[in-house]
Amino acid sequence: MASATPLLLTPGPLTTTDETKRAMLRDWGSRDTDFIALNKWIRERLVALVEGQGTHVAVPMQGSGTFAVEAMLGTFVPRDGKLLILVNGAYGRRMAQMCRYYGRAHAVYETSEDKTPDPAQVDARLAADSAITHVAVVHCETTSGILNPVAEIAAVVARRGRRMLIDAMSAFGALPLDARTVQFDAVAASANKCLEGVPGVGFVVARKTALEACEGNAGSLSLDLHDQWRAMERNGQWRFTPPTHVLAAFARAMEQHEAEGGVAGRGARYSRNCRVLVEGLRALGFETLLPDRLQAPIIVTVRTPADPRFEFERFYDRLRDKGYVIYPGKLTVADTFRIGCIGALGEVEIRGALVAIRATLEEFKVTERGPLARAVNA
Amino acid sequence: MASATPLLLTPGPLTTTDETKRAMLRDWGSRDTDFIALNKWIRERLVALVEGQGTHVAVPMQGSGTFAVEAMLGTFVPRDGKLLILVNGAYGRRMAQMCRYYGRAHAVYETSEDKTPDPAQVDARLAADSAITHVAVVHCETTSGILNPVAEIAAVVARRGRRMLIDAMSAFGALPLDARTVQFDAVAASANKCLEGVPGVGFVVARKTALEACEGNAGSLSLDLHDQWRAMERNGQWRFTPPTHVLAAFARAMEQHEAEGGVAGRGARYSRNCRVLVEGLRALGFETLLPDRLQAPIIVTVRTPADPRFEFERFYDRLRDKGYVIYPGKLTVADTFRIGCIGALGEVEIRGALVAIRATLEEFKVTERGPLARAVNA
Repeated sequence: MASATPLLLTPGPLTTTDETKRAMLRDWGSRDTDFIALNKWIRERLVALVEGQGTHVAVPMQGSGTFAVEAMLGTFVPRDGKLLILVNGAYGRRMAQMCRYYGRAHAVYETSEDKTPDPAQVDARLAADSAITHVAVVHCETTSGILNPVAEIAAVVARRGRRMLIDAMSAFGALPLDARTVQFDAVAASANKCLEGVPGVGFVVARKTALEACEGNAGSLSLDLHDQWRAMERNGQWRFTPPTHVLAAFARAMEQHEAEGGVAGRGARYSRNCRVLVEGLRALGFETLLPDRLQAPIIVTVRTPADPRFEFERFYDRLRDKGYVIYPGKLTVADTFRIGCIGALGEVEIRGALVAIRATLEEFKVTERGPLARAVNA
Repeated sequence: MASATPLLLTPGPLTTTDETKRAMLRDWGSRDTDFIALNKWIRERLVALVEGQGTHVAVPMQGSGTFAVEAMLGTFVPRDGKLLILVNGAYGRRMAQMCRYYGRAHAVYETSEDKTPDPAQVDARLAADSAITHVAVVHCETTSGILNPVAEIAAVVARRGRRMLIDAMSAFGALPLDARTVQFDAVAASANKCLEGVPGVGFVVARKTALEACEGNAGSLSLDLHDQWRAMERNGQWRFTPPTHVLAAFARAMEQHEAEGGVAGRGARYSRNCRVLVEGLRALGFETLLPDRLQAPIIVTVRTPADPRFEFERFYDRLRDKGYVIYPGKLTVADTFRIGCIGALGEVEIRGALVAIRATLEEFKVTERGPLARAVNA
């Protein structure tokens, strides 16, 4: 299904519905009652998506998802705290980088990009280092598309009396996270992933009692979630100019999320997209990075074919001309590229992408579609 | 001119053209060549607006204007530096608050909200305190609408061999700032003020040699302008997800800014808006805060009428019903409200607002339209 504006098979920015984009055709006053009501609805709905009614609060944050994650770490880890970061990709590594920026003590437990962290290992590290106050994990590492065992890790962290912080950027709204059964102090995500809004705002859903204790922690005014929350609680308004159009689109996108059946409905569509994509790629001779049991239905990492006629940039450009934008790889362990399953698209669009991929491979006469090194980390 | 969507006579979010908003009806891939070209054009044009071609570079930053200002202070003032902040309103005070957040040494030279800082006083403070490395000033303080003497202060700062940082949030693009004659290391502003984009992105235009020296200064990954700049110079892409739709609108808005005659054309329209507004308000019996020589053509602060039948919230609501959104006061020295002159509106809309204001005053039978205390700081 080619079109003048290509479909984004990317993990954000992604393809949004026309209805969502049309919500941006109005200018909103930031202290207007309609706009205040719109924000209130977004915040309540975000809390409901993790079943946190009565116990949790949602605090939106201007900027990209990284801003929300940095706001979460900076606000929740006190200056004398220590963060254990579970790393199996770029977004885990980025959290360690944030800690270096603002001088927070931290330790890293790193596994390979195609392996999940072992809860027993987390337990051992918490037992061995009583200085660790918080543990941070990425729900779905967009680097590879791997699904990390957040619930199992949260159980270990809770048993050890430590606090859990989750970067659920590319999972929130499609993969279940239930605050009644998974103990966490905060989870950060963005409007522009599984909730299918446009980029420009993120958010943190936090346990209210934990957030209340965070006054004075943050090392940045802009990224102080406690201050942002207090201001919103006072009068429903933002401290600093909100991205009004982005928020209007976000509200419209969340209405569509609700209409699709919430997390279950959205997750089911993405799972179908992912299955069709993985099966189609394998039928074309490609090898995907992850075994199916570790593959989150968000983004699929594909090993670069060994055939020297396959050049990613040319492949990317031709696919784009055919109406499909894919994503470069970000792995350090293997040469790869990525194709997203999220955004306003379904099986029809995924099948269309597979047709375009097949045609492009034939154009370039790429015959050897398996990777050069079949298993880098076997 | 009433309408279903009211006109925003506010200092951002403000009213944008339909053309600008329609630019958001497309989803952009963040590494797509078209999108990279769009960002390049925005950055070059921002530099041209301060005549900084060859000497200056523009670095956009996700978030509200405050994020850009905090990024500027955090990136440019080194950890062993000291910032002198010139305060005559909320935005000057906010810069001091930022310094407290990240523990940067700073001093404050504060004048009343209806007075400008005295360059001779700045000179004396720089002479007396050799630890001061940087001076920060707000070009137009939106708190009151006052125009600060940025060029005169910059001259003093340069003579003393210190560095100048400018918050030109509500001035950039309408009030001239010429990097060839005014020496500054950096100026911060936002898409959503005089350039009439939508909110969600700000920017800093910096002297390239100064920015090059800023590596390692920032205490925040997200707000590290040096890192953001280096990444953009490498491949034209953003480090973290850009607000793609907001940027598309910004580019479209800047094309319209250029078509209007750039800074001179935009400034001329706002000056007409401001003159019509101030004269109209005075004709209705209102008293404006500032003398004309200190009034920037951005936002007008009006003293609240003494008449007890004037209640701001009711006045605001009725005006909104009539199609005009105004702004509450932010002054500490006097009870006031504010009316903006900026955004996609001209003399016709300002005259329409004046008609609505007159009608609302008559509805509420507000006869004593001068303020309760005629001069708080006389």
